[in-house]
Amino acid sequence: MPAAPTAGPFTLDEIAQACGGRVEGDGATMIRQVNTLECAGEGEIAFLANPRYRKQLELSRAAAVVVASEHAALTAAPRLVTEEPYVAYARIALLLNPAATPPPGAAPDARIDATAAVAASASVAARVVIGAGARVGDGCVIHPGVAIGARSAVGPRTVIHPNAVLYPDTVVGADCVIHAGAVLGADGFGMAETGSGWLKIPQIGRVVVGDRVDIGANTTIDRGALDDTVIEDDAKLDNQIQIGHNVRIGARTAIAGCVGIAGSVRIGRNCKIGGAAMISGHIEIGDGVTIAGGTVVAKSLPEPGVYAGVYPLDTMDHWRRTAVRVRRLDELAARVAAAEKTLRALAPEGNGGADGDQ
Amino acid sequence: MPAAPTAGPFTLDEIAQACGGRVEGDGATMIRQVNTLECAGEGEIAFLANPRYRKQLELSRAAAVVVASEHAALTAAPRLVTEEPYVAYARIALLLNPAATPPPGAAPDARIDATAAVAASASVAARVVIGAGARVGDGCVIHPGVAIGARSAVGPRTVIHPNAVLYPDTVVGADCVIHAGAVLGADGFGMAETGSGWLKIPQIGRVVVGDRVDIGANTTIDRGALDDTVIEDDAKLDNQIQIGHNVRIGARTAIAGCVGIAGSVRIGRNCKIGGAAMISGHIEIGDGVTIAGGTVVAKSLPEPGVYAGVYPLDTMDHWRRTAVRVRRLDELAARVAAAEKTLRALAPEGNGGADGDQ
Amino acid sequence: MPAAPTAGPFTLDEIAQACGGRVEGDGATMIRQVNTLECAGEGEIAFLANPRYRKQLELSRAAAVVVASEHAALTAAPRLVTEEPYVAYARIALLLNPAATPPPGAAPDARIDATAAVAASASVAARVVIGAGARVGDGCVIHPGVAIGARSAVGPRTVIHPNAVLYPDTVVGADCVIHAGAVLGADGFGMAETGSGWLKIPQIGRVVVGDRVDIGANTTIDRGALDDTVIEDDAKLDNQIQIGHNVRIGARTAIAGCVGIAGSVRIGRNCKIGGAAMISGHIEIGDGVTIAGGTVVAKSLPEPGVYAGVYPLDTMDHWRRTAVRVRRLDELAARVAAAEKTLRALAPEGNGGADGDQ
Repeated sequence: MPAAPTAGPFTLDEIAQACGGRVEGDGATMIRQVNTLECAGEGEIAFLANPRYRKQLELSRAAAVVVASEHAALTAAPRLVTEEPYVAYARIALLLNPAATPPPGAAPDARIDATAAVAASASVAARVVIGAGARVGDGCVIHPGVAIGARSAVGPRTVIHPNAVLYPDTVVGADCVIHAGAVLGADGFGMAETGSGWLKIPQIGRVVVGDRVDIGANTTIDRGALDDTVIEDDAKLDNQIQIGHNVRIGARTAIAGCVGIAGSVRIGRNCKIGGAAMISGHIEIGDGVTIAGGTVVAKSLPEPGVYAGVYPLDTMDHWRRTAVRVRRLDELAARVAAAEKTLRALAPEGNGGADGDQ
Repeated sequence: MPAAPTAGPFTLDEIAQACGGRVEGDGATMIRQVNTLECAGEGEIAFLANPRYRKQLELSRAAAVVVASEHAALTAAPRLVTEEPYVAYARIALLLNPAATPPPGAAPDARIDATAAVAASASVAARVVIGAGARVGDGCVIHPGVAIGARSAVGPRTVIHPNAVLYPDTVVGADCVIHAGAVLGADGFGMAETGSGWLKIPQIGRVVVGDRVDIGANTTIDRGALDDTVIEDDAKLDNQIQIGHNVRIGARTAIAGCVGIAGSVRIGRNCKIGGAAMISGHIEIGDGVTIAGGTVVAKSLPEPGVYAGVYPLDTMDHWRRTAVRVRRLDELAARVAAAEKTLRALAPEGNGGADGDQ
Repeated sequence: MPAAPTAGPFTLDEIAQACGGRVEGDGATMIRQVNTLECAGEGEIAFLANPRYRKQLELSRAAAVVVASEHAALTAAPRLVTEEPYVAYARIALLLNPAATPPPGAAPDARIDATAAVAASASVAARVVIGAGARVGDGCVIHPGVAIGARSAVGPRTVIHPNAVLYPDTVVGADCVIHAGAVLGADGFGMAETGSGWLKIPQIGRVVVGDRVDIGANTTIDRGALDDTVIEDDAKLDNQIQIGHNVRIGARTAIAGCVGIAGSVRIGRNCKIGGAAMISGHIEIGDGVTIAGGTVVAKSLPEPGVYAGVYPLDTMDHWRRTAVRVRRLDELAARVAAAEKTLRALAPEGNGGADGDQ
């Protein structure tokens, strides 16, 4: 298989100059790619971020390694010493693997409305459809099959992968990445219940996405009902996330795959939402909140902290018995209260269990 | 940013005539858009449906408001008084924001099979592919990149958003909305286990969708194995829902985002399924059942009512301790039973806790 | 509605010869389609795999039935007797309903890069885009709107349904089925946290899919960070599954809809993962593990077995009370321990509950 294009190679010294860190050993070592401690060989640099893998460091055949100073002595290989090995590794990987940039210009069969404004430096692939009044900024890369609705705006250097959809009036900032199949701006789930059925409420707000936002494959973000749905700068969204209308996601918040966020939720800055968590409508989550994967959040969490709510895994047999106990906890608590009452009668001075059922 | 097209403006009197309600104050007030109580200003009408926001009503600078009669005195603004403010608001929003209707006809690069029957009044956008024998009804709007498989039928006035896919033999009724990336008619997950691996079972049923059904972005509905998968009239499906083969969803049932419904489930009429709920295969859910978001339903629920099954959220530290307790509930119950037994020996007439462990 | 094309009809004898089993009754009975015991009539064959439906067998008007020998006496209809009726039924259904095979060749408006190698026997539909250096094998069927990225390889006879996306460098084996909207090879969710925000880590691994793998509609499989994400032969993936970077799914493992699998998880062979289960990152699941739908797996499961972790469903009212009890289990356990202590003081020889709180 032909390899994806890379930059480089670079010497270890050149890498240190570009990405930071102090070289120990042969700074002329040539590096062309990153790899794991286990697999790296000739021309490859690996890294140790987690001390748990120090044994792998000792055994590694990598041409060079990135390590924290306290682990520098564990290897005889040429090394880049830094206090943040994982960050340095990310910088090196970016240096060696720049994003592919297709040539600017629009494919002959892209359908760009005559009133749309697409920068000359943008790349617009085959099968893209861009609606009336839409704007696409400098250096954007719009992959095959993307549909950009009327009056939408895409900021400079943003990349939109195949078959993603921006409904009309969607706003996306600069340097974003929108992965394949993502849908921004579909109608929010808003209906009034009437005697004769559901009455749809027009969703006239927009989706507004800040700068440097990543949106994963097949993630959906609904447009607002009246106000906009807003994703702030530097938010990172994984795949298959559903974000309801009028949600606001704060800057730098990271959300893992399969999370569902119901309408009008506000999530603060610097939050971390674990995979498959589900957040009920109209909840407010403050800055710096971490939520464990799989947790259902049905009340506001104004304070920073780490929250969880996951039923513990068990063997099916034991789970079955325990689940019955859970459903009958009321009864068990009543029995404990009754026993405490009897005990208090028998031993009035005893500490027969606090003061009964609460 | 240029605004999306709207209808109007209308006077408050005209709005009352079109949408119902009684005008109090200046019926000549011009209204061009709906907005929230907080943001509405000149030319905008807001509404109070939830008494919790009555303070916002008092402070609102809206040109007019929609209120129930008991709140009419809270505002000096021109107002539309009605017993159902939210429904009236929905009607007004629809009046002012009619769905955009692209011109009829097919784009030059739409690929419509010669044997397909597409109504002259339908709009078929660029990059649409319509297969052999398919039918598309009067006034339909088929957006870019939609694939309609052979022998499928789409009823009048149905709108299909970009890149949605109808597999062959799919039937969709009138006045439906299918959002971007939705997939109707992919194979159900049916396989027979053999000694040498899985043997695929052809899925020869169809997906049959009634009238006035909404289907959200990236929602998937599998075709039936032998019988059809059926979504009845007026059902409303949010984004990222998965519906397995041979499921039947009753009329007017509303399903929030991220719900998973396994094969052969039957859901009655007028049900409400909360976000991320999961319904196991072959379950029957009766009419009028409401299920809380995040609940796993593993048994049939024939009776109307509200059901839930969500592990309560906690701080991570406390959750950890509690989770261990949950796993050991068996043991705790045994200890309570033992204590009760001892108590009965000590105090035979006492009420030492019902009659032991159950 | 015109019917989908089928093969046949065949006599029951011909079916037995092709699919196995012993004919009892008139082997000349003509069979053109499979159907359920309830609905089958003239020209249709039904099957009984689950003895629970034996009453339906007795009442069935099917032209022929597939039964195990112990149920053969329950029907007077011509029958195919076999020890595995469900497997035989699958074979018969496949015989009568061969997959539609569009004619080979590429549609005029497919965009195939000049350096791509597409087999002459492959069918490439309208609106398909195939990138530089990509390879598409013999007999493949690539449906409308599919995007196949540069340097990707698709093995012989694999079918890719509309609007699915393969990012560059994706490898798919022979005889796979990839359903509509599936996305293979989007970037994994890998970022380093820095003082000034998230730093993206280039995802330079690939997605590598074996032979005879099914991938459901709107399922997403992320490319590896350094190593590849691997789906082994005969794995079966339902719709809307999310698979993170560097995951490995073992051969023959079946995964139901809406499952989320976080990065670097390893799942063994012959596992069954129930719908909407969620598996945390870096977990190892051994061969032959079954996980109940809706379960969150946050620790490795090296041993085969059946595991579950689902909060039991209840009425909302009762659930509310029970949920409070769950959150206060710590306190209840402390009260039981206190009561036990008091009891031990009162009845030193009694079995007042093992040895206290653990």
